[in-house]
Amino acid sequence: MHDLQALVNDIQREIANHSKRGKVADYIPQLAVVDPAHFGIAVTTVDGTEYVAGDADVSFSIQSVSKVFTLTLALGMVGDRLWNRVGREPSGSAFNSIVQLELENGKPRNPFINAGAIAVADVLLAGHQPKEAIGEIVRFVRFLADDDSIVIDEHVARSETETGFRNFALAQFMRSFGRLDHPAEHVLGVYFHHCALAMTCRQLSHAGLFLAAGGHNPSTGRTVVSRGRARRINALMLTCGHYDGSGDFAYRVGLPGKSGVGGGIMAVAPGKASIAVWSPGLNENGNSLLGSYALEMMAQRTGWSIFGV
Amino acid sequence: MHDLQALVNDIQREIANHSKRGKVADYIPQLAVVDPAHFGIAVTTVDGTEYVAGDADVSFSIQSVSKVFTLTLALGMVGDRLWNRVGREPSGSAFNSIVQLELENGKPRNPFINAGAIAVADVLLAGHQPKEAIGEIVRFVRFLADDDSIVIDEHVARSETETGFRNFALAQFMRSFGRLDHPAEHVLGVYFHHCALAMTCRQLSHAGLFLAAGGHNPSTGRTVVSRGRARRINALMLTCGHYDGSGDFAYRVGLPGKSGVGGGIMAVAPGKASIAVWSPGLNENGNSLLGSYALEMMAQRTGWSIFGV
Amino acid sequence: MHDLQALVNDIQREIANHSKRGKVADYIPQLAVVDPAHFGIAVTTVDGTEYVAGDADVSFSIQSVSKVFTLTLALGMVGDRLWNRVGREPSGSAFNSIVQLELENGKPRNPFINAGAIAVADVLLAGHQPKEAIGEIVRFVRFLADDDSIVIDEHVARSETETGFRNFALAQFMRSFGRLDHPAEHVLGVYFHHCALAMTCRQLSHAGLFLAAGGHNPSTGRTVVSRGRARRINALMLTCGHYDGSGDFAYRVGLPGKSGVGGGIMAVAPGKASIAVWSPGLNENGNSLLGSYALEMMAQRTGWSIFGV
Amino acid sequence: MHDLQALVNDIQREIANHSKRGKVADYIPQLAVVDPAHFGIAVTTVDGTEYVAGDADVSFSIQSVSKVFTLTLALGMVGDRLWNRVGREPSGSAFNSIVQLELENGKPRNPFINAGAIAVADVLLAGHQPKEAIGEIVRFVRFLADDDSIVIDEHVARSETETGFRNFALAQFMRSFGRLDHPAEHVLGVYFHHCALAMTCRQLSHAGLFLAAGGHNPSTGRTVVSRGRARRINALMLTCGHYDGSGDFAYRVGLPGKSGVGGGIMAVAPGKASIAVWSPGLNENGNSLLGSYALEMMAQRTGWSIFGV
Repeated sequence: MHDLQALVNDIQREIANHSKRGKVADYIPQLAVVDPAHFGIAVTTVDGTEYVAGDADVSFSIQSVSKVFTLTLALGMVGDRLWNRVGREPSGSAFNSIVQLELENGKPRNPFINAGAIAVADVLLAGHQPKEAIGEIVRFVRFLADDDSIVIDEHVARSETETGFRNFALAQFMRSFGRLDHPAEHVLGVYFHHCALAMTCRQLSHAGLFLAAGGHNPSTGRTVVSRGRARRINALMLTCGHYDGSGDFAYRVGLPGKSGVGGGIMAVAPGKASIAVWSPGLNENGNSLLGSYALEMMAQRTGWSIFGV
Repeated sequence: MHDLQALVNDIQREIANHSKRGKVADYIPQLAVVDPAHFGIAVTTVDGTEYVAGDADVSFSIQSVSKVFTLTLALGMVGDRLWNRVGREPSGSAFNSIVQLELENGKPRNPFINAGAIAVADVLLAGHQPKEAIGEIVRFVRFLADDDSIVIDEHVARSETETGFRNFALAQFMRSFGRLDHPAEHVLGVYFHHCALAMTCRQLSHAGLFLAAGGHNPSTGRTVVSRGRARRINALMLTCGHYDGSGDFAYRVGLPGKSGVGGGIMAVAPGKASIAVWSPGLNENGNSLLGSYALEMMAQRTGWSIFGV
Repeated sequence: MHDLQALVNDIQREIANHSKRGKVADYIPQLAVVDPAHFGIAVTTVDGTEYVAGDADVSFSIQSVSKVFTLTLALGMVGDRLWNRVGREPSGSAFNSIVQLELENGKPRNPFINAGAIAVADVLLAGHQPKEAIGEIVRFVRFLADDDSIVIDEHVARSETETGFRNFALAQFMRSFGRLDHPAEHVLGVYFHHCALAMTCRQLSHAGLFLAAGGHNPSTGRTVVSRGRARRINALMLTCGHYDGSGDFAYRVGLPGKSGVGGGIMAVAPGKASIAVWSPGLNENGNSLLGSYALEMMAQRTGWSIFGV
Repeated sequence: MHDLQALVNDIQREIANHSKRGKVADYIPQLAVVDPAHFGIAVTTVDGTEYVAGDADVSFSIQSVSKVFTLTLALGMVGDRLWNRVGREPSGSAFNSIVQLELENGKPRNPFINAGAIAVADVLLAGHQPKEAIGEIVRFVRFLADDDSIVIDEHVARSETETGFRNFALAQFMRSFGRLDHPAEHVLGVYFHHCALAMTCRQLSHAGLFLAAGGHNPSTGRTVVSRGRARRINALMLTCGHYDGSGDFAYRVGLPGKSGVGGGIMAVAPGKASIAVWSPGLNENGNSLLGSYALEMMAQRTGWSIFGV
């Protein structure tokens, strides 16, 4: 325990010294203004202890990290029928590519690329108005993190709604294949809002803890998903969680994780801990440059890689 | 231990009852004649104990499973410079697709699709004649498996040379981008021969043991690669080892593994065991249908998935 | 002249006997209900004489034939600057494909595929409200055909607005590349309305006459475009006017032409005549099956092919 | 007649003054050494009169212009069955792209891209050794041009054989789909040799005359193909003759034509003349930059565009 605190401090110090900090996402105006100097890290072990450093209590836009939570929620609603709507293979393409959608009749490759998460949002809308579905997602994330203060940043949601042409294209394209049950505007209302969830590293590490602990949140004593489902969500994060940089993340870090263009990454060391990092600058695949590096250090120093002994 | 023997026996019995056995690869004439009723399984734990059932001592063509061995050998020769020649991302395409090669200037996505393994073969040829490089590979696999009886099936090698037009296309295409240092015929000589290695499940489980044991072969007491490299090869197998079915294999089985169109799969449970299965019928992605299923049972019953607790 | 009337009568009779009539477009509900038995043909020679047969005076939805008129109008407004917005190469893809748009940064290949006509509609919107732009297009087509009775079928326009998800996807996708100046809804308002123009073969053959007569409409005595521009629009129709069946149409018919999914085709025999045909059933490329065949007969019997002597 | 001589002189003078001359093809070593200052033009009218200027009697490598001759020869051998082997649509891709081949099961889009001409070469090999097929092609081109001095430049043929990896890839790829009846080496032997035909503008304009004169060579009095076939070959040249610049060539020049990376273009004004130009520098689509420009001037000044009045 003592060591983990020293480790996160070390990592924070080393990251602070980096001058190459990647490129802050600029296609969502509200994200473009975030200071790239931020860095936060929070580790919550399966016994519930927290180790934090840097800006671990500063809120940021979790963006695509939210896709793990909506996937979990949708699996809870429709179970394996979800896989009729979305695949579970790495895409081999950019996060917002539309090419594969055309070649594969509008079925997204996996729930962690934009098109896939849009399909998941459509599932969450069944029988609901967009506001209700959004409310449900917020309640679920609060439940996971055991923290009722988590909210959606409406400025970010609005900013994305106004400029998210590519996501509108993806949704309309899927609709043209009969792959969405609801109007694109509704589906994207849900999508843009859950992407706009504002959370701190500390909150995010809490929210991911159930995936490190066999589906059960040790802090709250509540079971979220079965052991098997936790395992399978981790597998999806490993193969698809970092868009077209998933292979590299697995190679260098060796932990299931999900990134967002806000610069956050939530990673899971099964049986050990849930980890959240945040550094706003991105690499060429749209993943946090220094966040990935921080997790690489973390995995190396702890030996938590799932691929080693 | 007792339990593992019972488990492999169970698996063998259950697989024997399956009538849907997939489709034996028919694009290599020598493979098309193999009886789909075969099934073998061999588990070698990191303490060196073996548990086998079915046709565990019948030789089969390991085909693309060999790509793990040539990758290991090439990394030993040129280290991380290998990544200038080949990427490490899932392809999102069929094992023999050429589309991505054109879009990405002839650089293969990873060492486990055909184009990538051809690039690796080109690396292994540096300073050698094809025969020497092939000899080197055979010696290396014998060393890994601690078994000097392992040989190449020359009929299969010849059959592939005569009909492997697609692989010739891939090699010539890469050559047109300046991505190969040697003539396509030489590179494919090496490639077709290492794919034609004939091994039993027992031998294959021995050969993969170093990946389960941190780079060290406990049976022979020899170190093959560093702990870190073993981890990283496992990561590559997890994200890219089953072509465009890698995500599904990770989801269902949760173990790093590499398949071949001969119906073999070598899988690794880090810290636990190396597992080899063989069932000649393939699924639509070119991976052994029942071999995958056997490993899914194995992972479920042992709890060896790397994604769980 | 006498011969031409006999010829269109012959063609009408022969077409009437065909039982294989293609497949009426079903993705726009209002088009799906059109009777496939219809056939009309109208030839207007450059001296202004008309030869008609069959349902030459029955209105149908001209759909993409309208793209010739909006292209002409846009060239009149912005001249060669239009080519910064859209290319002039055959696409080698389906009329509604989005793949090439992603590979070519959102710039459509030519003004006759959907994406290209959407870009043209965006040009026509400059400084206008959608209603004004639509009014302008209707006035222009009336001027070309010298017929003030031509109107837009509002049912078709509405039907397309409600179901044209694919076109929304194309527009939003182009917008994400900064390729549209106006909101997708406005641009598609213009697009769907001009596609919904209802015209008869007789009207359509009048409207195309300027392209057969060097840019000048001999019936009205008005100059529409320069001789050079008429020539270039004809060239575009020849290479791009039938989507991914343009090569085949050139091969079999040998006349510049533009088809629409309503089953209409407007063709031009430079120096000779403007021809309009209508048969609602489509071939696999989305062009009128029997309309193409009628034009093939026409070209063979008149020797009007631009490729022969 | 007098005017045509003045015109070719004018064109030659104007071209001579251009400093931007495009980029000489460098992927075939033997072509890379050609002086970009060369320019030749030859016009042969259907009455057999010649008008030449510049280097009209200097031999150059006709490269892909030869594809018109092999297409004509293959149509003579197998007629419309040829279209089972190759399509007749523009590709929308680069001349040597392999992507479409994968998406369309190895069937090339048209006979004027590399893959298509390789398929045609395979047809010409039926029942022949490569040498015989090559001999047949040479004899046919000599017959067309009425000139027995035309030969293949063996240095160029060898150069292409040694460096034509991309063409080997295309052939092997097609073979993997069962689209070639003969070994890639044989087919490419034929292909590389016919591309290496050395001809002058004067000879080339003779060889194309049958296409301008309804299938009949007025100089020799011999019929080469039917009137309909001449028309259809012209249509193919118009839509597919300049790779992914075919639309632009039709737009600017308005004549059927076929270009080669040696810098030659053969164009046809039906009923008027056959024209050959040569300027070694290429534009970005692999077509002669100044050759295209010369033909644009030619078409403008003569009014020979097939799209005008």
